[in-house]
Amino acid sequence: MNTRHHIDALRALLGDKGIVVEAGDKQIYETGARYDRGRAAFVARPANTQEVSTVVGYCVRHDIGLVAQSGNTGLVSGSTPDDTGTQAVLSLDRLAGITEIDPVNRSVRAGAGVRLSALNTQIEADGLFFPIDLSADPRLGGMIATNAGGSRFLRYGDVRANTLGIEVVLADEEGTILDFTSGLRKNNVGVDWKQIFIGTCGAFGIITQCVLNLEMSPCQSATALLVPSSEDAIPNLLVAMEQACGAHLSAFEGMSGNAIRAALAHVPSLRNPFEGGAVPDFAIMAEITRCNPQRSGEQALDSMLEDVLTRLWESDDAPLANALVGPPEEMWALRHALSEGVKSAGRLFAFDLSFRRGDVMLFLAHMKAELARSFPAITVCDFGHLGDGGVHFNLVARPDDPALADPGYERSLRNLVMAVAVEKFHGSFSAEHGIGRMNQVYYDRYTPDPIRRLATNLKRMTSPGALGAMTL
Amino acid sequence: MNTRHHIDALRALLGDKGIVVEAGDKQIYETGARYDRGRAAFVARPANTQEVSTVVGYCVRHDIGLVAQSGNTGLVSGSTPDDTGTQAVLSLDRLAGITEIDPVNRSVRAGAGVRLSALNTQIEADGLFFPIDLSADPRLGGMIATNAGGSRFLRYGDVRANTLGIEVVLADEEGTILDFTSGLRKNNVGVDWKQIFIGTCGAFGIITQCVLNLEMSPCQSATALLVPSSEDAIPNLLVAMEQACGAHLSAFEGMSGNAIRAALAHVPSLRNPFEGGAVPDFAIMAEITRCNPQRSGEQALDSMLEDVLTRLWESDDAPLANALVGPPEEMWALRHALSEGVKSAGRLFAFDLSFRRGDVMLFLAHMKAELARSFPAITVCDFGHLGDGGVHFNLVARPDDPALADPGYERSLRNLVMAVAVEKFHGSFSAEHGIGRMNQVYYDRYTPDPIRRLATNLKRMTSPGALGAMTL
Repeated sequence: MNTRHHIDALRALLGDKGIVVEAGDKQIYETGARYDRGRAAFVARPANTQEVSTVVGYCVRHDIGLVAQSGNTGLVSGSTPDDTGTQAVLSLDRLAGITEIDPVNRSVRAGAGVRLSALNTQIEADGLFFPIDLSADPRLGGMIATNAGGSRFLRYGDVRANTLGIEVVLADEEGTILDFTSGLRKNNVGVDWKQIFIGTCGAFGIITQCVLNLEMSPCQSATALLVPSSEDAIPNLLVAMEQACGAHLSAFEGMSGNAIRAALAHVPSLRNPFEGGAVPDFAIMAEITRCNPQRSGEQALDSMLEDVLTRLWESDDAPLANALVGPPEEMWALRHALSEGVKSAGRLFAFDLSFRRGDVMLFLAHMKAELARSFPAITVCDFGHLGDGGVHFNLVARPDDPALADPGYERSLRNLVMAVAVEKFHGSFSAEHGIGRMNQVYYDRYTPDPIRRLATNLKRMTSPGALGAMTL
Repeated sequence: MNTRHHIDALRALLGDKGIVVEAGDKQIYETGARYDRGRAAFVARPANTQEVSTVVGYCVRHDIGLVAQSGNTGLVSGSTPDDTGTQAVLSLDRLAGITEIDPVNRSVRAGAGVRLSALNTQIEADGLFFPIDLSADPRLGGMIATNAGGSRFLRYGDVRANTLGIEVVLADEEGTILDFTSGLRKNNVGVDWKQIFIGTCGAFGIITQCVLNLEMSPCQSATALLVPSSEDAIPNLLVAMEQACGAHLSAFEGMSGNAIRAALAHVPSLRNPFEGGAVPDFAIMAEITRCNPQRSGEQALDSMLEDVLTRLWESDDAPLANALVGPPEEMWALRHALSEGVKSAGRLFAFDLSFRRGDVMLFLAHMKAELARSFPAITVCDFGHLGDGGVHFNLVARPDDPALADPGYERSLRNLVMAVAVEKFHGSFSAEHGIGRMNQVYYDRYTPDPIRRLATNLKRMTSPGALGAMTL
């Protein structure tokens, strides 16, 4: 590939700001949020949809593989180039405009390069927010391309459920622009095409704009740490909390003692909230919220939560051994620090799994026993979203553990976990992170042939050019 | 087509119960919910997914066009055969089993032939319900194939949002069975294939089984009829009610005075709820619900609703002229009678439109003025779902009005309404009913060429056989 020639041609089309070629400048676009680090032939930074179309059409006609990137906070190597140096990055970071806020429709039109935090800041004054709660601060294009879920899925659903429309550029010779940005909530006029671009890591097209559903900002919330009477009691505890709190329940997050201890050890700003500092084997962070103001005479949410927990604790066969209502900021700080904590605790093998809600604890129990037998160097530091069946199944080993010297260690560990999750418990090998290069091997292994063929054909008919970090 | 031969062959495969050939027996399968009446070569009634696959494969190999049918309550001629007598009906009415209720996962696995009412009866004891509220009692397959919406969309979303998985039979020579019934809530492992079968009227495959999300049944609800201070004030009223009621608000339904009067005139069991019987030009039925029990000391919902409405009524620039809290059964009876009322009021031209929420009343005002000029025989009897932008734009004329004698009347009326809805107000020509034969002309007119081509190619790669009542 005559890279110099292509760079000159694209600079003529996009201007100086539109193309990045210096090694030092390219680096942030080549480096993923967790481990991955690739090499980009160049980085194109188009300023608007028309320029995206121009770049994509050019690259398809000249056989240049493209990886679309927005916030680059993903965890599956879905938005970074591989290490061949032949792929180019198409960054959406200049498509950062919020072009319409519609408070009556509760919707916003924004570019793929808008950061989640920037969006929420802009719409705060209207009493609205985009209800996807994550530990990271991604840009919208990547959130849609990975169908992010997060901690308040239980109440608000995933990005898919909150995406009213998208605009997409296909990787064909024309860089065809498809506009599905009606912003309508009910619209049954044939295939809902936006669905094939949501959660598919940019393999079928590049998302350039979106229209998102907004929700009313919570005006009050209360949180508690729950210690279940046993791990078997957790499904009952979830159901009991849903029944007692109804639509107020907005998070029901599981946290292993190991993950909590790792966070407390590695994030100094955290306070240990447990009585006498004794971290239990497993705790749940529950949150209830309301988005309408408390009326005079009405109970505040923290007192409501205390009542609910007291009744649960006093009930026969109580699923609850202990509970502690505390300030939301402190509890969320602990919850959101788990990811950083386990990353700092040693060599991390991370899995993003999901199960039917009743199967999460069964999987964990089974897997812990099996790992203790087959991979004794591993400490299980899981946490996740019990309310929707998601579990960040994080395994940590001491970096100097001699077992890690075996070059086949990681692959056989990953294969075991995935086989138990998918084959035995009928779970998902990627709950909310997507595929990328990281999960390609499991996509290949667990996608039935007829589905695989459909995906390949769909790819050919939408974006025949080389696009994205996964292979269909 | 040697129909007799095919019938014998299919009888051998499905048994006597599996095939209907007598004119009298076929009739219910040939007759749609509103007007349409076609002729079926025969009706196949497979007993399970394997038999569906067998029938479909047979029909594809022998070039027999199939229309899948479940409850046949749709309004767009999407589940009845045309009048050629060459299409066969594939009825799913024998796939009526509920095979799994999972209270912890809040999900159910059921056949496409299960009626909505039967599902809700079965899961009632678990305190759960399927949260799609319709005036009809469809079967699940058709609900998914049309992506039904209904009156509580505002709170619970559409069928798409509540479908965790489906099983599909493709119209290829093998009758390929695709299983997407994991029942997982978070699962991002490539294309979410179920989405292309949801809302596409069976054109891409026949839905045979599903796994659905269930919600906790409401334990208390309160309803009120609101009379807005002006039609311009309605968007503000919607936003104010959302802000005041938060997640409790479960319906916000618009009803024109004409539709209410038609219902009161034609449904004798209804009581006129308005003071002195004076029906306003426009009223809104608002509902608030809770699915957790009222705690001691907590305000009942009807008193909460009264407080909210009093404050709204007393506010400066009050969007509310009058309001009347009344029993939910009575108010829903009125709301659900509107459809029957307008059908009985004369010759009905029905439209199922949707808009951004702020545009519904603008469209109505514009359209009423335009119809008064161009189609003076028409009375507008609209009602619908202001909370999600949907409007059942029903136009009624006296059956003996001389204007109706013009053979081009209906077509030009429909073309005008659709042009204003889609071209001027960027709305949807089918909000929640789907396409079928009825909306084919508008699908053809308003689907951009590249999208049309994608749909045709997708059809070819999934179900190349003749399937369904719409042409892609």
